[in-house]
Formats: sequence, structure tokens, C-alpha cells
Amino acid sequence: MISLPPALERLVQMLSRLPGIGRKSATRIALRLLDGSEAECRELARSIVEARERTRRCSICGGLTEDDPCAICTDVRRDERLVCAVERSSDILALERTGRFRGRYHVLGGLLSPLDGIGPENLRIDLLLERTRSGNLSEIILALNPTAEGEATALYVAKLLAPLGVQVTRLASGLPVGGDLDLADELTLGTAIEERREL
Amino acid sequence: MISLPPALERLVQMLSRLPGIGRKSATRIALRLLDGSEAECRELARSIVEARERTRRCSICGGLTEDDPCAICTDVRRDERLVCAVERSSDILALERTGRFRGRYHVLGGLLSPLDGIGPENLRIDLLLERTRSGNLSEIILALNPTAEGEATALYVAKLLAPLGVQVTRLASGLPVGGDLDLADELTLGTAIEERREL
Repeated sequence: MISLPPALERLVQMLSRLPGIGRKSATRIALRLLDGSEAECRELARSIVEARERTRRCSICGGLTEDDPCAICTDVRRDERLVCAVERSSDILALERTGRFRGRYHVLGGLLSPLDGIGPENLRIDLLLERTRSGNLSEIILALNPTAEGEATALYVAKLLAPLGVQVTRLASGLPVGGDLDLADELTLGTAIEERREL
Repeated sequence: MISLPPALERLVQMLSRLPGIGRKSATRIALRLLDGSEAECRELARSIVEARERTRRCSICGGLTEDDPCAICTDVRRDERLVCAVERSSDILALERTGRFRGRYHVLGGLLSPLDGIGPENLRIDLLLERTRSGNLSEIILALNPTAEGEATALYVAKLLAPLGVQVTRLASGLPVGGDLDLADELTLGTAIEERREL
């Protein structure tokens, strides 16, 4: 087993930190980059730095944007009294792809995770409370991942929002649309039974 | 459907060109990068440029290396009369991982593909012939992908090598080790029957 040249090894390690990229994919990407032209590598490097430099957080919702406030927060056709709270910016894209939500967003910037040292003070929860108080919001949808950390965060936020008189909802859990009932895991199927709806 | 901020869109497009990365993964990676610190982005950008700058092609085998000739070509414990010809540098890594080959390598730099305008003059075939003539090689293993282009390239190279009196072999095709016979495709299973070996 030969070891990689040092600069290549460093690149592979950097690429392995990206989401969904293991060491094998990272090596494949790195070698393809080095097989390509130097101009191509420089262009990729520049686009990373430029994107990071030009992009900031929207001061209202916390989403990534070049102009502050962002296009969604300034879109008067969207219901500003309906706010969907999400973990990170990529969740906004996922929800926008559905085309089913016409309110505004609020990026929490993570989920509560005491073991990783992430407490309420690390998230944009206080800004959500402030926005609720001053914005006359009608409903806040807590669109967090249906995981232990997502549920814990949703419960925590809901408790803080309760005294403010705003309706707090969360996304439905159940069978994926187009999915197979006998392939669903027990937790999902169990939730689908408990939260069944009248036809 | 909102469109991405321009600098982010550019980054997503650049990332989508990497092997195994579609638009969805590219978006996920880009957003994770922008969610991270600026220092982290700069570090990744720098490691891409540095790896590309420091890495060159070995003048003997064409593999990626920081020192020329590369560690494999200068390793006296390896059989220099046995050469394994591969399509690209990543194939060397794959073969080295097996720990079963103790010869040297020769990177062709691609496969013949007339439709993409890749002819023999674009590959390092002439250098392989030169190496065969001057190096007193005993065997050349054509370790190319078992695809139409791989086979065509192997046949073309083998024809040129024939008059030089060197033994030319190729990798065995057949069932993947640990694989399931009834999951194998017809071509693979057919080849496994045709190329069956005495037990």
C-alpha cells in the first residue's frame, strides 16, 4: 500500500470533511482534480472563497444570502405572519422545492445537543422569540428533523413560544409518499398509525 | 422555487463537475461550506491549489507524484520488467490496495474514444512502446476497465506490442469475489463460464 503524496493526502483529508464524502470518494475527487488542468483547480478554489465572502446571513431569518435582508424576507407576496423554523439553510431550499409553503423562514443554526456542547445560547432561538413578540406572528411551524435532537429542540422552543400566544405546529410524520408500507421501519409505521387522519 | 445567490450558484456548478457529485450533493456541500467558518473555506481552497501545484506526472510511469521519478518507479524491490498499464492514476491506488502486484505501472491517461476525439496520439501509448523496447520488459498487464472503450484500447495497444516480443495479458473477468451468482448480470456470468478455470 503506497501512501499518497503529502499535498494530495492533505486535500483528501479536507474533502473527507464535506457532507456525504468518505475517504474513497475524496480520493477519487482529488485525483480527478489533479488530473485536470491547473486553471480548473484555481477556478474551483476561487469559487469556494468568493461564495463564502459574498454570502452572509440574512439579519431577519438567518438564511444565506448576498443581499440583506434576503429575497424571501423582502418578498411582499409571502405571508409574513407565518414562519417556518428550520435547522439550517439547506432546509429552506428543500422546503422551497415543494412549492407548498408561502410564508417566511427562520434558521435556528443547529439543534440542541448537550453532548456536543450546543445549548440554546448557540442557536438563534432568542431571535425567533423576539421576532414572534414584535412581528404579530400567527403560526410558527417547527420544521426540524424527526430525530431525537430535532424533537428535543422542537419541544424546547415550543415551551418558550407557548406564553406568546402564537400557534405552534410541526411537520407531519408518516409514510413517505410513494413509499412501500412493508418497507417502512416500525417507528415510522407506528407514527403513521397513531397520527392517522380521517379520509 | 427560489434561485440561489449568484456566487453560491457558481460554486454549486463547479462542484457538480466533480466525479460522483450531482447537483443535489453539490448544493448540500456548498451550503455546508458557507455555513462553516471563512478560515475553513480558505483552507480547502488553498489545499486544492497547493495539491495541484506540487503534484506532477512521473516522467517514467505518468502517475501523480511530488518527486520525479515517483516512489514506485524508484523502488528497487519492485520488478521493473513487469509493467501494469492503467487508464488513470486512481487505478494505481486501487491496484496497490490489493497488495498483490509488485511490478511497476504505466498510466495511459485515458481510453481511446473516437467520438470524444481521443485518439492514440492523446494517450501515453508511444511512451509505453518506447519503455518496452528499451526496458527489456517481460510482461505487460493491460489493466483497463472491462468496457467497450477499455477493450478497444487494450486490443489496439496489444497489437502494437505484439511485434516487440513481450508477453501481454489482461485482468481476469468473472464473478466478483463474495458476490452472488444469481445477482450477476448476463455478460459477467457468461464471461465467467467461458473463462472457467480448472479446479
